[in-house]
Amino acid sequence: MPLDLTADVVDLTAALVDLESVSGNERAITDAIEAELAKAAHLSVTRIGNSLVARTELGRSERVVIAGHVDTVPLNDNLPSRNDGTLLHGLGSCDMKGGVAVALKLAAGLPTPERDITFVFYECEEVDAVRNGLRIISEQRPDLLEADFAILMEPSDAGVEAGCQGTLRVEVSTTGERAHSARSWRGKNAIHGAAEILNRLAAYEARMPVIDGLEYHEGLNAVLINGGVATNVIPDRCTVTVNYRFAPDRSEAEALAYVTEFFDGFEIALTDSAPGALPGLDRPAAKAFVDAVGGQVGPKFGWTDVARFTVLGIPAVNYGPGDPTLAHKQEEYVPLEQIRRCEQTLRTWLTSGPGA
Amino acid sequence: MPLDLTADVVDLTAALVDLESVSGNERAITDAIEAELAKAAHLSVTRIGNSLVARTELGRSERVVIAGHVDTVPLNDNLPSRNDGTLLHGLGSCDMKGGVAVALKLAAGLPTPERDITFVFYECEEVDAVRNGLRIISEQRPDLLEADFAILMEPSDAGVEAGCQGTLRVEVSTTGERAHSARSWRGKNAIHGAAEILNRLAAYEARMPVIDGLEYHEGLNAVLINGGVATNVIPDRCTVTVNYRFAPDRSEAEALAYVTEFFDGFEIALTDSAPGALPGLDRPAAKAFVDAVGGQVGPKFGWTDVARFTVLGIPAVNYGPGDPTLAHKQEEYVPLEQIRRCEQTLRTWLTSGPGA
Repeated sequence: MPLDLTADVVDLTAALVDLESVSGNERAITDAIEAELAKAAHLSVTRIGNSLVARTELGRSERVVIAGHVDTVPLNDNLPSRNDGTLLHGLGSCDMKGGVAVALKLAAGLPTPERDITFVFYECEEVDAVRNGLRIISEQRPDLLEADFAILMEPSDAGVEAGCQGTLRVEVSTTGERAHSARSWRGKNAIHGAAEILNRLAAYEARMPVIDGLEYHEGLNAVLINGGVATNVIPDRCTVTVNYRFAPDRSEAEALAYVTEFFDGFEIALTDSAPGALPGLDRPAAKAFVDAVGGQVGPKFGWTDVARFTVLGIPAVNYGPGDPTLAHKQEEYVPLEQIRRCEQTLRTWLTSGPGA
Repeated sequence: MPLDLTADVVDLTAALVDLESVSGNERAITDAIEAELAKAAHLSVTRIGNSLVARTELGRSERVVIAGHVDTVPLNDNLPSRNDGTLLHGLGSCDMKGGVAVALKLAAGLPTPERDITFVFYECEEVDAVRNGLRIISEQRPDLLEADFAILMEPSDAGVEAGCQGTLRVEVSTTGERAHSARSWRGKNAIHGAAEILNRLAAYEARMPVIDGLEYHEGLNAVLINGGVATNVIPDRCTVTVNYRFAPDRSEAEALAYVTEFFDGFEIALTDSAPGALPGLDRPAAKAFVDAVGGQVGPKFGWTDVARFTVLGIPAVNYGPGDPTLAHKQEEYVPLEQIRRCEQTLRTWLTSGPGA
């Protein structure tokens, strides 16, 4: 059944939720979106895999990206959608088909915005970064993403969450010497040796820097621990996997240096790293947007694709309907009022912009 | 090829090593042993599975068990055997076909010992206790094992290792509360909570009680540690598997009470337990044997099947050729001199006993 982009934004959200699109299975939803956008004469549409870029070309003085991923985490007995009059329930309702519906309504319904708009609907945000549609576009066609400002419609309770924290992962290890556990004094216990790693983590005090008026909140946590050979052998190795979430005033290199110093004396190996994104609220386009939303801005603690825009030199914020803590939960839902408010706020801002 | 029980004990050891008998595959070696023992008119032979009991019935005032397992740990590119003139190399040479060869020589070659002898050749010592041949005999036919004293021919460098330490295993766990690692302060990290478990273990001081003149040496060690859900989730559970090796003056219940007290404040679950065995050197048969060997006695730290005899009320010691620390190693070997010395010592003792 084709999507109706003239429908109410809540009904459109429900239609998108009912179009199952677990990561890797975005062809149908992308086909449906492409078919409708192709009808809009004011949009220039490019498809890359199962991702779409749709641009107005009005020669405005500012260009804004409005982006959302169309995939969801796996099914969890939470389809089809259910509208209880206040909340829309179902897989992807919160993360983030409410935001996608808002973007689609604007794409189809605003032929002459005062700011040029680049709409991005992309695949595979919920899986390995290598498959991420926004990443693929930014590498293959960065020209398509050029803009003064970007809005990523991730759930943020219809408030602006600016920037995002970076994340890195290290494995901190101890070594020992194997021996039969009946003669343990002949070996050296690597798990006992990890006590100091855990002591330092337990005593860690989080840094909470204020950037552009927003208070971030770092975290340094053991997320996995593994050690041991067999139940009768003194273990010769223990590895603690540590996740550091760092505020965006630190680069990845600075974050790694901090962790390396923190675990001084232990073997350490970097296994994953992604930069944070500065809020960029000093940029005119960002300021105007925050004013339009009503001046309410908070920091984004989790890592999101806004960091990909930062790497491209584009300030970006998260702004979309839905409670971010409901993302990936079976019982996820999105408040109807937030979907409507986001649509209205963006419509007002985009049609009252700086113009030509 | 049939076994030749009239051959030199070293050659017999080599023949036994070359008869591969990894746990579960003892049929061939047991058939070969049974065929030879059946020829000895002075022995009454009973087969249970792939285990054999061969008894003299001379009405002597004392009865001694001489036992050895015929299985080995898995192949590790260490067959066939190799005799370098000083050492016999190969899978099972140390653990414990040298000891089995000694017992076979005595079984076939001593028709009228001064002590009645119960020879036991049993299967599946290297695997789960439920398959252990000595355990099966002790449960199905405990009458076959009745004796005043038992010698288990586990490698002990041809010295007497008396009794054995008990062993138990507990899982000590912490619980926390999951949260996204980007907002870690909303959860409670169970891995960080395990720091105190490791601190106590690292500070543990071993008890070393002296029993019947032998100094035992306990050990309390983390052997496994596991915690964590995913690399972006604050872990809600961490489990440390702890192995307690306890001296034989403590019962299993006392050992568990000690560990429970040691980890006071933490969730604890018992997963495995086996009693120790007191050295029993105050018994006349044990004294006589130690004197015959030359008075050299040490404590046995590792758990062995001697504890099964203790449960039956029979004092038991470990006594066999080979370095116990070489057991289960690819490069295991047994010194020829130790095989010959064990055979000679036992022969002398058995033929100069208390008689009728």
